[in-house]
Amino acid sequence: MSVTAASGFTANGVACGIKPSGDLDLSLVATADGRPVAAAAVFTQNRLTAAPVVTTASHLARSGGRAAAVVLNSGCANAATGLQGSQDAEEMTALVAAELGCAPDEVLVCSTGLIGYLLPMDAVRRGVAPLVAGRGDDEAAGRRAAEAIMTTDTRPKEVLVERDGFRVGGMAKGAAMLAPNMATMLAVLTTDAAVAPDRLTELLRAAVADSFNAITVDGCTSTNDTVIVLASGTAGDVDKRALETALAEACLDLARQMVGDAEGHTKVVTVEVVGALSDDEARAGARKVAESQLVKCSWYGNDPYWGRVASELGTAGIAFEADKLSIRYGDHVVARGGVAAAVDEAALAAYMAGPELHVVANLGIGDGRARLLTNDLTHAYIDENMGTS
Amino acid sequence: MSVTAASGFTANGVACGIKPSGDLDLSLVATADGRPVAAAAVFTQNRLTAAPVVTTASHLARSGGRAAAVVLNSGCANAATGLQGSQDAEEMTALVAAELGCAPDEVLVCSTGLIGYLLPMDAVRRGVAPLVAGRGDDEAAGRRAAEAIMTTDTRPKEVLVERDGFRVGGMAKGAAMLAPNMATMLAVLTTDAAVAPDRLTELLRAAVADSFNAITVDGCTSTNDTVIVLASGTAGDVDKRALETALAEACLDLARQMVGDAEGHTKVVTVEVVGALSDDEARAGARKVAESQLVKCSWYGNDPYWGRVASELGTAGIAFEADKLSIRYGDHVVARGGVAAAVDEAALAAYMAGPELHVVANLGIGDGRARLLTNDLTHAYIDENMGTS
Repeated sequence: MSVTAASGFTANGVACGIKPSGDLDLSLVATADGRPVAAAAVFTQNRLTAAPVVTTASHLARSGGRAAAVVLNSGCANAATGLQGSQDAEEMTALVAAELGCAPDEVLVCSTGLIGYLLPMDAVRRGVAPLVAGRGDDEAAGRRAAEAIMTTDTRPKEVLVERDGFRVGGMAKGAAMLAPNMATMLAVLTTDAAVAPDRLTELLRAAVADSFNAITVDGCTSTNDTVIVLASGTAGDVDKRALETALAEACLDLARQMVGDAEGHTKVVTVEVVGALSDDEARAGARKVAESQLVKCSWYGNDPYWGRVASELGTAGIAFEADKLSIRYGDHVVARGGVAAAVDEAALAAYMAGPELHVVANLGIGDGRARLLTNDLTHAYIDENMGTS
Repeated sequence: MSVTAASGFTANGVACGIKPSGDLDLSLVATADGRPVAAAAVFTQNRLTAAPVVTTASHLARSGGRAAAVVLNSGCANAATGLQGSQDAEEMTALVAAELGCAPDEVLVCSTGLIGYLLPMDAVRRGVAPLVAGRGDDEAAGRRAAEAIMTTDTRPKEVLVERDGFRVGGMAKGAAMLAPNMATMLAVLTTDAAVAPDRLTELLRAAVADSFNAITVDGCTSTNDTVIVLASGTAGDVDKRALETALAEACLDLARQMVGDAEGHTKVVTVEVVGALSDDEARAGARKVAESQLVKCSWYGNDPYWGRVASELGTAGIAFEADKLSIRYGDHVVARGGVAAAVDEAALAAYMAGPELHVVANLGIGDGRARLLTNDLTHAYIDENMGTS
């Protein structure tokens, strides 16, 4: 179950012709009655901000944090498209608003795909009417919406978190250009809990920090990243702490699904840095390790070569004392006091060959800690990113 | 011609058994008479500092900027090796000093290879006597020294710059973990110009900034990077400006050779950012582009996908205005005013297929400029870095 699991929401996905393949490429999440509800969003920090990001931010500001729908497309990012791109993003929202019977400012928009190309608006114009007309509140409708935002994803990503009296559902896409703040990723979450827009924004920011912003595939931050949550309120007031944890759990689940479907990966790797001077320093260290081409190649080769991990930590711009460093893969301590530790080679080799790795670097100089989810760097990643076709 | 081109220097390379392959792995550059001369060095900024880096820095400090020899080994970095590693680095210098008849503080030492492993000192002890005894001042001796520092390099790297009345020669190694400040790289330069140690240090720093620190292969900075220059003075006083440019030219030549021999590369790419608010901002932008996995994959695929270049600039933490950006590959303008420009597709494709690319991003907001040399990211790079064996 997905964005349609919380009561009050409908969804759909259609193929309007943006993707030459004929796959689903236009997606909708809308309130059942077409009336606006509380909404919040978090956006990319890339200064090359895509047109739909600008449009969504301005609509939310003008509507006072309320939205009736989110329209999304895959196959074209509508980024680096200038004035025409802005007009196209605005037109997408106006088309949906006309079909839904709400104001254009009450429609949000997201795009994902290639940068630097104009949207084929004829295809979008043809697609909106059937997109809105065919929306449903069942599981299949939610699945169509999740499939219509896929790019190099190999599977749709959906989540449902159920709590006493309310639900949080969601869908997401993202497979490369994944980095903290944020990934090339779109996510739409829905809940039937009643919550004011300001509070919803706070909750979303906290949930994103510990989920989408704690994953990195290649250190590249996209132009279009957007996470949106809509709250229909049909379930009435709920426990605030319960809503906070449910939203965080849903975001984390979707973030894990992204890393688990990252382009060409063979392993999901948790990089944890502890014993740093501060949490921020731990985070900087973990990121340097997680984004290192050399370390990622080692993982791909099942190689526990900790020297590269240590070397990255030494250049992370954080406090570091070589002789205090210890590193372990799973339960296997590979370095202690800054030098190699004796290991059970066979057991370590078996661990490294597995699909999930957990590397923990203890800097031994403080209490700061952080953890990131990432992947290995593989031939298949290069294959996927050698060309735009 | 190489480190032996300037008068007053000898060199040698032998196979002492550090490398299981039996290839040359112990290298020497020494003054002809074993007497110390003016010396200067620049080191890695990695806080996981290898033992030989610490030893060389302390020897130079104690000798007042004078050295009679540099001993170098490949096949083991002697990094993350604790107290034993320090003792081994000191012993290497003492062994050479004994053979050469100078003080141990007058011998500098460099290592390159795997991190986290102790040097096989028995092999080193056996190797030093024949290393020193077999040294010569001819081209072949210089070549042996250059070959004995190779790791994944496919060819030795040597340079000779001749000026009126003096020469600057040099050798280097480096193929991966190449990033500004500095590369996994070792370089030894020699000159017969007479110059005081302090002045030599200034000249070396300036030369390194515009050469070794202006290349990046994978954004990884090694634990062992060292550039050393020895000045025999046999050519007497020379024009200061001539020496400055000769040293810079020698360093740049060696740096270019490194990028031209980077692990698994198919292209050498010059990334230039102009029109930035400052040179520092231009440098940060160029580095973000040059170290982007996604951009590097595009180059490998001959793909002029400028959207990735623009996206990286948008996340480089520098002033950026999307609608002022233009990007060109060679003479082909692919983006202007932040959006796609019309291109001659066939001519652009022919350019992208070549072995050298020059991408220029004009931010259009200032006078800052910077340029970096880098490579594409390829299947072969991953193959080379999947394992340590």
